[in-house]
Amino acid sequence: MRNLDEDNITRAVIAMHADAKDARVRTLMTSLVQHIHSFAREVELTEEEWFKGIRFLTEVGHITTDVRQEFILLSDTLGLSMLVTALNNKKPQGCTEATVFGPFHVEGSPLVPLGGDVANGAEGEPCFVRGSVIGTDGQPVPNAELQVWQADAAGKYDVQYARDGGDHEHRARGTLIADAQGNFHFKTIRAEAYPIPHDGPVGRMLEALGRHPWRPAHLHFLITAPGFDRLITHVFRNGDRYLDSDAVFGVRSSLIADWIEHPPGATPDGGTSDVPFYTLDFRFVLNPAAANVAAPQTAGVASPRSASA
Amino acid sequence: MRNLDEDNITRAVIAMHADAKDARVRTLMTSLVQHIHSFAREVELTEEEWFKGIRFLTEVGHITTDVRQEFILLSDTLGLSMLVTALNNKKPQGCTEATVFGPFHVEGSPLVPLGGDVANGAEGEPCFVRGSVIGTDGQPVPNAELQVWQADAAGKYDVQYARDGGDHEHRARGTLIADAQGNFHFKTIRAEAYPIPHDGPVGRMLEALGRHPWRPAHLHFLITAPGFDRLITHVFRNGDRYLDSDAVFGVRSSLIADWIEHPPGATPDGGTSDVPFYTLDFRFVLNPAAANVAAPQTAGVASPRSASA
Repeated sequence: MRNLDEDNITRAVIAMHADAKDARVRTLMTSLVQHIHSFAREVELTEEEWFKGIRFLTEVGHITTDVRQEFILLSDTLGLSMLVTALNNKKPQGCTEATVFGPFHVEGSPLVPLGGDVANGAEGEPCFVRGSVIGTDGQPVPNAELQVWQADAAGKYDVQYARDGGDHEHRARGTLIADAQGNFHFKTIRAEAYPIPHDGPVGRMLEALGRHPWRPAHLHFLITAPGFDRLITHVFRNGDRYLDSDAVFGVRSSLIADWIEHPPGATPDGGTSDVPFYTLDFRFVLNPAAANVAAPQTAGVASPRSASA
Repeated sequence: MRNLDEDNITRAVIAMHADAKDARVRTLMTSLVQHIHSFAREVELTEEEWFKGIRFLTEVGHITTDVRQEFILLSDTLGLSMLVTALNNKKPQGCTEATVFGPFHVEGSPLVPLGGDVANGAEGEPCFVRGSVIGTDGQPVPNAELQVWQADAAGKYDVQYARDGGDHEHRARGTLIADAQGNFHFKTIRAEAYPIPHDGPVGRMLEALGRHPWRPAHLHFLITAPGFDRLITHVFRNGDRYLDSDAVFGVRSSLIADWIEHPPGATPDGGTSDVPFYTLDFRFVLNPAAANVAAPQTAGVASPRSASA
């Protein structure tokens, strides 16, 4: 523990937590210390670069509030979130694939009746979504809970307006309960491509990396039903120019669907529209939960945004 | 860029910054992404653990202010700071070794005349420090600037009191200019072992790791002189119980010195003390600067605490 040099310091740090009570904590921190140290050695990190890193993390911390989670954005843009999603969502063929959770989920979004308007005043072209929730056996999953959320025509989520001093009303966000046959439908606005928040340190990082901040248009879903694994996913809009360069690496071919354009006229809800409108159909296939792993699988990411509360 | 899985996502993320203008940025981020991803794969990081990490970093960010730098504390306690110090301070035999900078340096500490009182009211047992600054050729380095800082008898730096709502006065901290023969002397208080701030997320991490937060008693020095490499180091107090378990891994045998105890009586400054007092002698040996590397070597860590300003 004296005279540690670049070669033996890693072992010394790891030896210091040999007494950690929780074996998993020991495993995690041993690997983390090894990789952080290997990084510094591999690039021969200078003191100036180290300090830039400290300053960057400080800025990420200071911009993070209960309506802006810049650490999740950092994890997303470095592909860590999608990697963790991939590691933890290995499902049988046929199940709907999972993708990143993102930083814009809100706990307790308002319950919207089937057929109701999720948009709640959010700007955008009218869109009618319908679909079903089934199991891998093809049978309907009755009464699944679907949380949906999306950006508006300006590419912003409601919580981003709240941050800019606006009212933090639930818009383009809601919770639906599918019917006994596993069917659901609701009205909303068309999903649009948008840049992730890039006026902060993560935006400057992307710029330094020569990367754009755009995500292809998508609609978020968090679907839960007793006896099935929770599904966190998106539906992506076919034809979007950013499908092959998603800033957070979340696109799966199986999650791409057509938003079908219709001329002004009769709408699926029995009304009429003066402007063109869109329809989207999507079927979600849930994975039956293994009884003994159901609990841990639903823990943890329930409320990332409360991180900064 | 579609359907990325745990095996190919790392290559895809790295490919996204192939156009980064700065080759060093590309090198750093390529290595960082590889190691962060390898960590997640190696431990099979769960979504719950990922979220705990997000929450931990958020807490580190939110406790960090202009008088508390929890990210530096995190880097220090994981041995990263000492590793970076070791990588960047390879000096010829005979030079005084460098050690960690720590989170408590303050830019612009008051100039104290030789023989003056650095303590400025900080609580502690009287201590008289003297020493010299020489080059590797044994010749005096005239008029070197020495910044010194230390904790008080309660184990706290002045800036920690400021954080607790107290006055942010410079105490146990000052800047001295050695004389033309490279000699300096000043009055201060005896350095004491102290726990790093452990009432925040880094403290909880240490507890989870079964580690104590203590550092052996030390006096910080930052020494600069034209024509020489800047030296950032400590002098450690011989006999301290934490010399072999420093929470930030900074101890070097060559930096350990005796604080000699004296009975009440005549003091080196020509006065007298009613209480026992201590003396410390230390000689610093600076490394001559290679002309072409002098500039980058002095950049960057000049003011870590401004990170959070």
